[in-house]
Amino acid sequence: MSEKNENTFIEGKRPVVEALRSGVPMEYVMMADNLRKDGLTEDIRRKARNANVPVKLASRKVMDGISQVENHQGVIAKAIPYQYAKIADILKAANRRAADHDGAALVVVLDHITDAGNLGAIVRSAEVVGAAGVIIPSKRSARVSTATYKTSAGAIAHVPVALVSNIAQTMDSLKKEGFWVAGASEHARDVIWDTNLKGKIALVMGNEGEGLARLTMESCDFLVKLPVEGQVGSLNVAQAATACMYEFLRQNTPAPVRRGSAASQA
Amino acid sequence: MSEKNENTFIEGKRPVVEALRSGVPMEYVMMADNLRKDGLTEDIRRKARNANVPVKLASRKVMDGISQVENHQGVIAKAIPYQYAKIADILKAANRRAADHDGAALVVVLDHITDAGNLGAIVRSAEVVGAAGVIIPSKRSARVSTATYKTSAGAIAHVPVALVSNIAQTMDSLKKEGFWVAGASEHARDVIWDTNLKGKIALVMGNEGEGLARLTMESCDFLVKLPVEGQVGSLNVAQAATACMYEFLRQNTPAPVRRGSAASQA
Repeated sequence: MSEKNENTFIEGKRPVVEALRSGVPMEYVMMADNLRKDGLTEDIRRKARNANVPVKLASRKVMDGISQVENHQGVIAKAIPYQYAKIADILKAANRRAADHDGAALVVVLDHITDAGNLGAIVRSAEVVGAAGVIIPSKRSARVSTATYKTSAGAIAHVPVALVSNIAQTMDSLKKEGFWVAGASEHARDVIWDTNLKGKIALVMGNEGEGLARLTMESCDFLVKLPVEGQVGSLNVAQAATACMYEFLRQNTPAPVRRGSAASQA
Repeated sequence: MSEKNENTFIEGKRPVVEALRSGVPMEYVMMADNLRKDGLTEDIRRKARNANVPVKLASRKVMDGISQVENHQGVIAKAIPYQYAKIADILKAANRRAADHDGAALVVVLDHITDAGNLGAIVRSAEVVGAAGVIIPSKRSARVSTATYKTSAGAIAHVPVALVSNIAQTMDSLKKEGFWVAGASEHARDVIWDTNLKGKIALVMGNEGEGLARLTMESCDFLVKLPVEGQVGSLNVAQAATACMYEFLRQNTPAPVRRGSAASQA
């Protein structure tokens, strides 16, 4: 899939500081040759040095030619575009995982998540539970950005994220590869605890506003819900994804031989 | 507990827009009488009107006198201070909940969480699982702020949050009230799924950097952990809290009579 249109320039002092702080990989940071030194520019220089990112000087004129925003403040960073994984790589990782874990593997599919921070938060939890990868649609979806690096807290470098043009087709491919496709939806009849999540599971999470699209829902093998006991709220999608991923892990973890334990409640 | 030092002024165009968007309750928004109209000031007027917040005009001189920041940009909002609950109210709510739910009730204790957004995210999930309240220490802890309103997505108005001066004493009081105090810690020997969370549970979550303080850990009846399958990461504290709260809910929800179901996996 072509990534020609990915925006790789990060412009302005604060956005560049934030990107460096979040661990966004960068080719270089460009600074105006007449830039006045201040706390932020010093912070940028320090963080760039610590991350082994070269700092180049350039004229305002050159930088104005590159800039796509109103005011780049004399600081533009060129990020190294995130390398999306191929679906085949995620399937391979899932099969390796399944071979080592009694047939169990998890892939997370995000149905048009709009917030790049939520994407990163889900990637972070996915890494912790040992998921093989995260799949997102190439259109009308948040992509990996500074906010994703930030909330993933480093996990984005370890969990493959793949872009697909058609979520429903991808779900069909996953089924052919032996996955059960489980959609998380408040409209589900069955509570996730009472549903069999053993084996290879593709967990499909809907977007922040509307949840799963109708077509996506119809492409699921089954739907599961997390019970809601409150009166007003709904879970944030990253929180819901984490609770679902842990239920997958629980069901796929052999129960231990119970021992008496001073630390545990009788 | 005295709340005299709560900062109730929100200053600057973007912070005020963000606070209005997040549902922070306000007494009024003050605008400089010579303020130039722009997209943000119009947005503030519109959001204030929709939230029934009066907009007052004032001179720059008056506003400079109120301001505690470098540049208020001619916009200062006076927030209505968040009314923290009393521990007694949370205990009452927990006992009501327990009476209706076979003895089960949940209170969440946060051991010096530093991020106000994490506080709001935990409050949001706490509302969804029906927790009776959230308890935070009055010092060295994030308090309810704009970021909390934002990430709680409205839940902050429905879940009581209490401030206590001493977390360890509060844990002792909870024990006397019949709670089991469960601390979430990566150092725990027992996985949360293999630990009995039935009944009245106080779930104690540690802070973002160091987890539970040693003293807090020692005051717990027992410790529980969420398994980590990944190689590099740790869960965000709000994600971990949500996974733990759902495990509490799972253990305290009677298993249904299993039925054949077309929607559920065989």
